[in-house]
Amino acid sequence: MTPDPESSIGARPGTLVLPAGSPPPVVRVFQYDAQTCEERQIDDLEALHDYAGTASTTWIDIQGLGKAATLQRIGEIFNIHRLALADAVNVPQRPKAEVYDDYVLIVARAPQDDVDPRVPLPQVCILVARNYVVSFQERYFGFFDRVRERIREGAGRPIRTGGPSYLAYALLDVLVGHYTPILEDISDEMDDLEENLLANPSPQHLTALYDLRRKLTVLRRLARPQREALLQLSHLQNPLIAPEVAPYLRDAHDHASQNVEIIESLRDTAGDLMDTALATLGHRSNEVMKVLTLMASIFIPLTFMAGIYGMNFQDMPELSMPEAYPTLLAAMAIVAGGMIWYFRRRGWIGARTPPAMDASKDQ
Amino acid sequence: MTPDPESSIGARPGTLVLPAGSPPPVVRVFQYDAQTCEERQIDDLEALHDYAGTASTTWIDIQGLGKAATLQRIGEIFNIHRLALADAVNVPQRPKAEVYDDYVLIVARAPQDDVDPRVPLPQVCILVARNYVVSFQERYFGFFDRVRERIREGAGRPIRTGGPSYLAYALLDVLVGHYTPILEDISDEMDDLEENLLANPSPQHLTALYDLRRKLTVLRRLARPQREALLQLSHLQNPLIAPEVAPYLRDAHDHASQNVEIIESLRDTAGDLMDTALATLGHRSNEVMKVLTLMASIFIPLTFMAGIYGMNFQDMPELSMPEAYPTLLAAMAIVAGGMIWYFRRRGWIGARTPPAMDASKDQ
Amino acid sequence: MTPDPESSIGARPGTLVLPAGSPPPVVRVFQYDAQTCEERQIDDLEALHDYAGTASTTWIDIQGLGKAATLQRIGEIFNIHRLALADAVNVPQRPKAEVYDDYVLIVARAPQDDVDPRVPLPQVCILVARNYVVSFQERYFGFFDRVRERIREGAGRPIRTGGPSYLAYALLDVLVGHYTPILEDISDEMDDLEENLLANPSPQHLTALYDLRRKLTVLRRLARPQREALLQLSHLQNPLIAPEVAPYLRDAHDHASQNVEIIESLRDTAGDLMDTALATLGHRSNEVMKVLTLMASIFIPLTFMAGIYGMNFQDMPELSMPEAYPTLLAAMAIVAGGMIWYFRRRGWIGARTPPAMDASKDQ
Amino acid sequence: MTPDPESSIGARPGTLVLPAGSPPPVVRVFQYDAQTCEERQIDDLEALHDYAGTASTTWIDIQGLGKAATLQRIGEIFNIHRLALADAVNVPQRPKAEVYDDYVLIVARAPQDDVDPRVPLPQVCILVARNYVVSFQERYFGFFDRVRERIREGAGRPIRTGGPSYLAYALLDVLVGHYTPILEDISDEMDDLEENLLANPSPQHLTALYDLRRKLTVLRRLARPQREALLQLSHLQNPLIAPEVAPYLRDAHDHASQNVEIIESLRDTAGDLMDTALATLGHRSNEVMKVLTLMASIFIPLTFMAGIYGMNFQDMPELSMPEAYPTLLAAMAIVAGGMIWYFRRRGWIGARTPPAMDASKDQ
Amino acid sequence: MTPDPESSIGARPGTLVLPAGSPPPVVRVFQYDAQTCEERQIDDLEALHDYAGTASTTWIDIQGLGKAATLQRIGEIFNIHRLALADAVNVPQRPKAEVYDDYVLIVARAPQDDVDPRVPLPQVCILVARNYVVSFQERYFGFFDRVRERIREGAGRPIRTGGPSYLAYALLDVLVGHYTPILEDISDEMDDLEENLLANPSPQHLTALYDLRRKLTVLRRLARPQREALLQLSHLQNPLIAPEVAPYLRDAHDHASQNVEIIESLRDTAGDLMDTALATLGHRSNEVMKVLTLMASIFIPLTFMAGIYGMNFQDMPELSMPEAYPTLLAAMAIVAGGMIWYFRRRGWIGARTPPAMDASKDQ
Repeated sequence: MTPDPESSIGARPGTLVLPAGSPPPVVRVFQYDAQTCEERQIDDLEALHDYAGTASTTWIDIQGLGKAATLQRIGEIFNIHRLALADAVNVPQRPKAEVYDDYVLIVARAPQDDVDPRVPLPQVCILVARNYVVSFQERYFGFFDRVRERIREGAGRPIRTGGPSYLAYALLDVLVGHYTPILEDISDEMDDLEENLLANPSPQHLTALYDLRRKLTVLRRLARPQREALLQLSHLQNPLIAPEVAPYLRDAHDHASQNVEIIESLRDTAGDLMDTALATLGHRSNEVMKVLTLMASIFIPLTFMAGIYGMNFQDMPELSMPEAYPTLLAAMAIVAGGMIWYFRRRGWIGARTPPAMDASKDQ
Repeated sequence: MTPDPESSIGARPGTLVLPAGSPPPVVRVFQYDAQTCEERQIDDLEALHDYAGTASTTWIDIQGLGKAATLQRIGEIFNIHRLALADAVNVPQRPKAEVYDDYVLIVARAPQDDVDPRVPLPQVCILVARNYVVSFQERYFGFFDRVRERIREGAGRPIRTGGPSYLAYALLDVLVGHYTPILEDISDEMDDLEENLLANPSPQHLTALYDLRRKLTVLRRLARPQREALLQLSHLQNPLIAPEVAPYLRDAHDHASQNVEIIESLRDTAGDLMDTALATLGHRSNEVMKVLTLMASIFIPLTFMAGIYGMNFQDMPELSMPEAYPTLLAAMAIVAGGMIWYFRRRGWIGARTPPAMDASKDQ
Repeated sequence: MTPDPESSIGARPGTLVLPAGSPPPVVRVFQYDAQTCEERQIDDLEALHDYAGTASTTWIDIQGLGKAATLQRIGEIFNIHRLALADAVNVPQRPKAEVYDDYVLIVARAPQDDVDPRVPLPQVCILVARNYVVSFQERYFGFFDRVRERIREGAGRPIRTGGPSYLAYALLDVLVGHYTPILEDISDEMDDLEENLLANPSPQHLTALYDLRRKLTVLRRLARPQREALLQLSHLQNPLIAPEVAPYLRDAHDHASQNVEIIESLRDTAGDLMDTALATLGHRSNEVMKVLTLMASIFIPLTFMAGIYGMNFQDMPELSMPEAYPTLLAAMAIVAGGMIWYFRRRGWIGARTPPAMDASKDQ
Repeated sequence: MTPDPESSIGARPGTLVLPAGSPPPVVRVFQYDAQTCEERQIDDLEALHDYAGTASTTWIDIQGLGKAATLQRIGEIFNIHRLALADAVNVPQRPKAEVYDDYVLIVARAPQDDVDPRVPLPQVCILVARNYVVSFQERYFGFFDRVRERIREGAGRPIRTGGPSYLAYALLDVLVGHYTPILEDISDEMDDLEENLLANPSPQHLTALYDLRRKLTVLRRLARPQREALLQLSHLQNPLIAPEVAPYLRDAHDHASQNVEIIESLRDTAGDLMDTALATLGHRSNEVMKVLTLMASIFIPLTFMAGIYGMNFQDMPELSMPEAYPTLLAAMAIVAGGMIWYFRRRGWIGARTPPAMDASKDQ
Repeated sequence: MTPDPESSIGARPGTLVLPAGSPPPVVRVFQYDAQTCEERQIDDLEALHDYAGTASTTWIDIQGLGKAATLQRIGEIFNIHRLALADAVNVPQRPKAEVYDDYVLIVARAPQDDVDPRVPLPQVCILVARNYVVSFQERYFGFFDRVRERIREGAGRPIRTGGPSYLAYALLDVLVGHYTPILEDISDEMDDLEENLLANPSPQHLTALYDLRRKLTVLRRLARPQREALLQLSHLQNPLIAPEVAPYLRDAHDHASQNVEIIESLRDTAGDLMDTALATLGHRSNEVMKVLTLMASIFIPLTFMAGIYGMNFQDMPELSMPEAYPTLLAAMAIVAGGMIWYFRRRGWIGARTPPAMDASKDQ
């Protein structure tokens, strides 16, 4: 549930509009260097002061955006610009990277398990400073569990020695990576739909295809600015981004580009599939109408002929001729044969129809 | 009602073409600094001279563009270039930002409550000078009420200390923000239409979808140059724009980008929905025609057979055979059964149709 | 009528291909400065030499391109590059701005009263030199009448003091301005068509919509390079363009951008309208077929039943049963009722159809 | 007939793949300066050495690419990079301009008489060196006949004094110019099709429209890189391109841009036409079905009523009532009238149909 | 079979995810200079140390990515960044070129025999260092056989003297070249489909067209970044790329651009073809329905007339009139004639239909 959009128009910039239903913030801190790694949950915010200027790297992970006072206090402790704090709290924002004097602010959005076009994708806001990273999540998302493990177990590895910009990369890489399984699911669903839609385009399958296209539209809207933000980050000449992290950010940008390209390919394929379904329906209409026209064209004239001699006029000389009945039957056979011959000549029946018949059998 | 477009072609540039029906200008002035805030309505234009060179910040808000002499006098007092004044008065203009020697002119357009594609969106023109801002509105729009309140109550806050460029940002931010609720309404309407169009594409719903697309086209036409203007402003190296306002303008640009991206997503989704409705109609035609073809194909041959023995030939040997009638009835049953078997084999009836039947029931 | 395109391929560049049907050139001269304004028609071309190097500004307006010798002599007098002269004479050209050493050549195209996609839009070529402007028109177009008046009456105003580049701007502004009423006409026609096409898509209206789209395609093809040419001019660092004219050229560029944006919006709306008309036709087909299917499905079985007892077999025991006739009538009523019940359950008739019925009534 | 594409994959770069069916090279030489002009056919290739370093300008025109040894020897004499020679010989290539140390290589493609989408467009490769131009054509094309004449007759004109870069421009200009008549033919064909498709969309016309679209796709694919190559050439700061040739190259670029814009407009119009044809077909289906539904809905119930009284039950009291027959006839008239009234109310017949009837008459 | 995408999200960057089913690496080494060429298979990886710093050029070709330890040891020996090694091993990657300090990493993808949209295209990763090239392939692909031959036989040729960057070009050129035969196959298939779809759009052909479009979508998704990577390489100012290789890389970029342009043309043509098939189906529906409507409209009224006089009322005066039967027959003829006249006037039969009849005969 998003907050009433009108309420915040014209409000002070930086006004915090807490996401409805978000739990109160839980602050978890990782402080680590190559050798040591300390991990704890912070209850008294003032303890955060200790992390703002140490030699080791600190990751302050904030889960839940449900209490303005806490968030504002965090903003003050880390000297976060009100606009930056508002970007972190007033979800959902557009993915972006903004360079401030003392930190770089990164907004990222990623699909977690599935995409519901009516619900905004989870947002994570990452603030990279000289010796710490602050991340804001609307509530606990599973995205970062693996990164936490890597920090715990990674003594001596880049995750422990790379500093805040490497940590920020690791977090972003996870988020960008979460597009992949979602896109593969969509691609698999599309393959399933393909078989059904090409054989028998039913409303359920058409609606399912529409739903896939809508999901892809949402993903594209977010994946494109995500790619731009990563491009900007990977070319940033800024002391906050360690030079040895640049190839990693380029790699993440590359992954984000791939996401966009796959989304666009899938959208194009979905459009092609819809065209094909439409034409298949058009072909099926033709087949149904041909059957009707054949039946009607053969029997309607015959029925008329029978109707003539079903009339009760007293003075119908044919009625009393003994050869009239067989003659009429013969005439009927000739008319029916003529119609069949005509339709065969037009290709509606006979030599060329069997394949079409087979085709329409799989409906 | 727009003025006759031909009348102004080739006229002197800067000729003021007053918007039809616009009330005479009401001039409201806010003069404020961190501590003080004075607010009044100006009746004698010459009093405006006092505001052109003070140390405090002044916002001259002009509501109504119905009297040329007043507007021209304002232009003279503030030394506004005739083209700039014409941009302010000759609504509607395209959103833009133009840098003049002593001021920056910004034209912005925003939807107020709803979008009527046949009526131009409200325009606000904002002129940012060294120590004042002049804003022009065709008539009183509610856009800026909240900004006024913030100025009144904001002693010590940026709105009072940020100078003209911050005020201009605050006004632009409000205008950009007004796209959001409109876009959410359109998105909600589209969700409603979606259900109806996927179940039963009726002309009313098709027309409603067309109306949404048309609104989105209008919004896109304005939102794109709005985004460009904000990009230009946020990168402007100009003493009129205070450096500390730059992040705010970047934020507004970001919001404007989001507007464009949402509009484009909604347009794509509307297009996908139209495709799906078209295919659903194609499927429905098939279903209707199948029923007709089934009925006709089964009963037309039977009726013909009955017609044969309804003829009045004197010499029809079958008529007098006692087993003829039951034999014919049996033949009819065989023919009907054969047709049903044939259509079942083609998948028109039986095992595979129930889902389709269900589907078409929800019409 | 355009000249045979093949004849000029491979000809000397600068070969003049006179537009078929263009009258012989009439040369009209305006020589003016802030105070004085002299206006006359030139019969002896050599008199033009007097205008090439005066302190006042001269506008040489050439109406008609029907005589090569005259045009070539004018080219010599004003030292016009053969390619530039060919651009002026060999209409139609693409809108553009080309900088030569001593002048800037501008090709502009604009719709005059209406757009006929089969006839090229009028072209005006404007050559801006240090102290004169030469304009070439295929024949007299009404575009510049108002500019002439403004020169005559404008003593002391920019049109008299702005020099050749201001005059060129004034001419271009008129041409760009002529798109506006045409686009408004198209927009109005589209509104009219909209009502008709959404209610009842007939071939006439479909063709009318096609014609509008074709006009818009032509306009877009010309409006886009026109915009580029004006962008180039407004950013040109060239002594031939006075710096104080730059804001005017920016304004004209802005107007040209608006033209392009409106054209593109109208084209998109026309496409959306076509989609909607197609879906409306699909819906209408369904409605017509439902009526047919209802009638046929109810009466065809009944007619068959009547046919059975119209047979003349001697041995049909039912015929002599007194209760047979009313029983059959009852059976018929049951069959008809069953069909109606079935179609009502499928939603083809009854509770849910009235809206659709109403809708299809407005055809 | 193109050579087997697989055979050349992975071959040495610069391997010459002679176009199948190309005649052996004929080498024609034009050596000229402002006053003199010598023209001859070269049989002994070694004579070409004389032309590589003279003060006059030489055009070596090679017609036919059927003999590798000749081409390789020419490459050696003029010191042509193997890749450049391969670009000239291994037709078809993409249009481009490549700057080598001692020459500029230009690949151009143009339609000669008509476009067959299955046959590559003729290619001409032009190599511009300090004092000579070498052109390669697959076989004799008529493109350059007029340029040859202009050289012969052009004593003192730019074609004789402009040097190699002017000659290259002249050749390119001819090639770019050959798009124009082809595009006008396509435009004329489209106008013809338009009338037919809007009145009566038949398969022949639909196929013809498809063919036009396919031709336009091919032309666009080549015209776009052609435009880019000319843009690059006209901005090239290279001693091989004389500065006074720049405006000519700009002019050719302009022409190439116009080609692209016309192609894109025609493609858009063809798409609009296809949409309109589709909707026209949809409308026609409706009209046909309305006639069927009207006939069936009026007569099927009447036939049923007649069928009732055609039954042979002994006990049908109505049969013996004298007023029964006229009563039934009256009832039939009422039913028929009621159906007609109903369809008239729905707008299928009567007041509103005449226009539609007229419209469908022109099929 | 691709590895489970979720398993690698959030893993250490550079984690090797071996492609399922890839055989263990086979390492083949070519060491060559202008005169000598040694070729062998490496079993003890440590022997590779000998190649990392020689004066001759070495190509280390690794076929198969099925054993992590081997790949990691190769990475250590050649000092490959973990991300670069991951790009080489974790197939499929997006085509790209990345510049590291000591080498340039190039990822390329190409179709080998055919394109199956559900199977990723083969990937080759090429690492160009100062005096060696390392290439990684998922398994043995035939791409490079011809390059190997050229090295063996090419004493004194560029392939032997051009160093690592020329070798890298040669490998890339082969990969880019493999698009050509695939695209020609698709183009040929499209030509075949064209004939069928324009004559008789059946579901099989529609599905085949859909498959072609899907293949083209996949190819486009890879061909575009391939082109970008080659553009970047051909403009790279880097000592690892020899200056004399630049024209070769430009040539490869040109080829890649052509691939993209052909893919896009084919996609457009496929879309046009689908439109045309849809309209052809619409026309065919009309033709079928016209036949049905003609038959029904002529015979249904006649049958009704016969039905009237088949009634058994005792009191039908016409029944006993001797002229009644011939009169009725005449009336029937008149009604039938009237219907035929009406349909002929509407253009459904007669003068204007023959062409349409002929057309529909070729179904």
